[in-house]
Amino acid sequence: MSAAAPFANVAVIGLGLIGGSVGLAVREAMPDVRVTGWDADAGVREVAAKRGLAHAVPDSIDDAVANADLVVLCVPVRAMGSAAAMMAGKLKPECVVSDVGSCKVSVAEAIATALPGQTVVPAHPVAGTEHSGPEAGFATLFRNRWCIITPCEQSDVASTERVITFWRELGATVETMAPDHHDLVLAVTSHVPHLIAYTIVGTASDLEDVTRSEVIKYSAGGFRDFTRIAASDPTMWRDVFLSNKDAVLEILQRFSEDLTALQRAIRWGKGDALFDHFAKTREIRRSIIEEGQDDARPDFGRSDHLGDAAPED
Amino acid sequence: MSAAAPFANVAVIGLGLIGGSVGLAVREAMPDVRVTGWDADAGVREVAAKRGLAHAVPDSIDDAVANADLVVLCVPVRAMGSAAAMMAGKLKPECVVSDVGSCKVSVAEAIATALPGQTVVPAHPVAGTEHSGPEAGFATLFRNRWCIITPCEQSDVASTERVITFWRELGATVETMAPDHHDLVLAVTSHVPHLIAYTIVGTASDLEDVTRSEVIKYSAGGFRDFTRIAASDPTMWRDVFLSNKDAVLEILQRFSEDLTALQRAIRWGKGDALFDHFAKTREIRRSIIEEGQDDARPDFGRSDHLGDAAPED
Repeated sequence: MSAAAPFANVAVIGLGLIGGSVGLAVREAMPDVRVTGWDADAGVREVAAKRGLAHAVPDSIDDAVANADLVVLCVPVRAMGSAAAMMAGKLKPECVVSDVGSCKVSVAEAIATALPGQTVVPAHPVAGTEHSGPEAGFATLFRNRWCIITPCEQSDVASTERVITFWRELGATVETMAPDHHDLVLAVTSHVPHLIAYTIVGTASDLEDVTRSEVIKYSAGGFRDFTRIAASDPTMWRDVFLSNKDAVLEILQRFSEDLTALQRAIRWGKGDALFDHFAKTREIRRSIIEEGQDDARPDFGRSDHLGDAAPED
Repeated sequence: MSAAAPFANVAVIGLGLIGGSVGLAVREAMPDVRVTGWDADAGVREVAAKRGLAHAVPDSIDDAVANADLVVLCVPVRAMGSAAAMMAGKLKPECVVSDVGSCKVSVAEAIATALPGQTVVPAHPVAGTEHSGPEAGFATLFRNRWCIITPCEQSDVASTERVITFWRELGATVETMAPDHHDLVLAVTSHVPHLIAYTIVGTASDLEDVTRSEVIKYSAGGFRDFTRIAASDPTMWRDVFLSNKDAVLEILQRFSEDLTALQRAIRWGKGDALFDHFAKTREIRRSIIEEGQDDARPDFGRSDHLGDAAPED
């Protein structure tokens, strides 16, 4: 075990995009750490073994977690409780249980209920792509991305520090936050944007007067930016919305009020109100680019890859 | 004049992102064509002359259009009528007037009213970036992008063919469409997505419980995809919404109904309804990628440029 590695044996439960990336990243960053992996789906376990997402991918979850010093739950947020329940009585007493869920209040509760007495340190790496499954992960997914740790009642200071070190070793920048504040911040920056993208993509594909082929053809006008996040894993996102219901509904309500105001400005021909709103939102983009959270090149730079120009309008 | 060039003298009025790109693209694709440019803003004319967006950028619009065989109006859609009015009586009788506006019904009417008797062939290159101004244009902007031609009452077949050839020479793939159908299609694929992006970015920046710095920090969760199009030119977009009011309000109404349905599914815990909706929208993304309208790499491939990983979640 390398000097910096905070856990000698790590078990990753759930081997999709995030779990697979955790396995690969641990193997790359902490070569002396032993990684076991498990997934409820035998087909996923097979791909995971072939891709080397872990040193070993046993058929039984008991074998996967028996020797673990850290278990990282990488299943959809509504499956966290039952995944944790499967390990009850199988973990070493000193084993730390963590997860990667996008909602922290409900997940911490579910894990704590399933594993009373076990140390639990919830975490959320704010990283991912629109792809999913055991083929989608890669070792550098967390590098230079944020990872938010949300200590709960079953966390202790020393274990929290070890989980922080673990994520730093994977390349992430770590921040700690109260679980309920995390859920509100993520409702704004991630959950509601996803719901809106899912909605508009659905609306566009259900129109009678505009064909689906027209929507696809002229998507470079802005629409296609939404389709990327609306292509994310449906199970994961169903669970996120059900688990972070209150914060999501609260932010959606604000969004609807703001949309109604702009709608009225259009109906009444209030050009100044529209202009003022549109000028303000430019600032946010500028800050995101200054903070290194996005690509400053026009059109995300993707056009180079499309062969040529930079679409939109 | 090269064999293929359909117009010997082209005047570009308005030298922002699109006008500047038209100038540069004509100079590159049709080197024998003479391009003159004009902008109402003296500072823009100065930059345009320095960047060589046209062969000549005279101070007077009269000088810019006097010898033109084609005038391309590249001003915000609500300024089209007054820009056209400035040329009344200054154009050669056989000069064809075109434009690049994102709304076609209102623009065709405005130009036709300002220039009775002149041949008018409206066009809309579905291309652009979130950047604007005379520094933003580049010669390859229209390459492999769609350009929609919407013939109107003042169009004739021969002039329409010449405008089609003009855009093909600039690298675009040309489609013709009725003006009102264009406005509906673009409301879906471009105008409403922009309004929604402007709205959510505004909502996020106005919350009391979540700081602006948190929004920016964790924007890789999905939010930052919206900020790109919400950074587009405010004047252009104010005009688009006021000029395509009916189609925009109609599509917004559909969107609001769909959002309400998903909101209710979340409130009532209807996981299956959410899952079914989210699974469906994946298809659209797949088709857009198959049609070559977007980059298939995870996260638009932008992460390579950010130094490392592929964020989101």
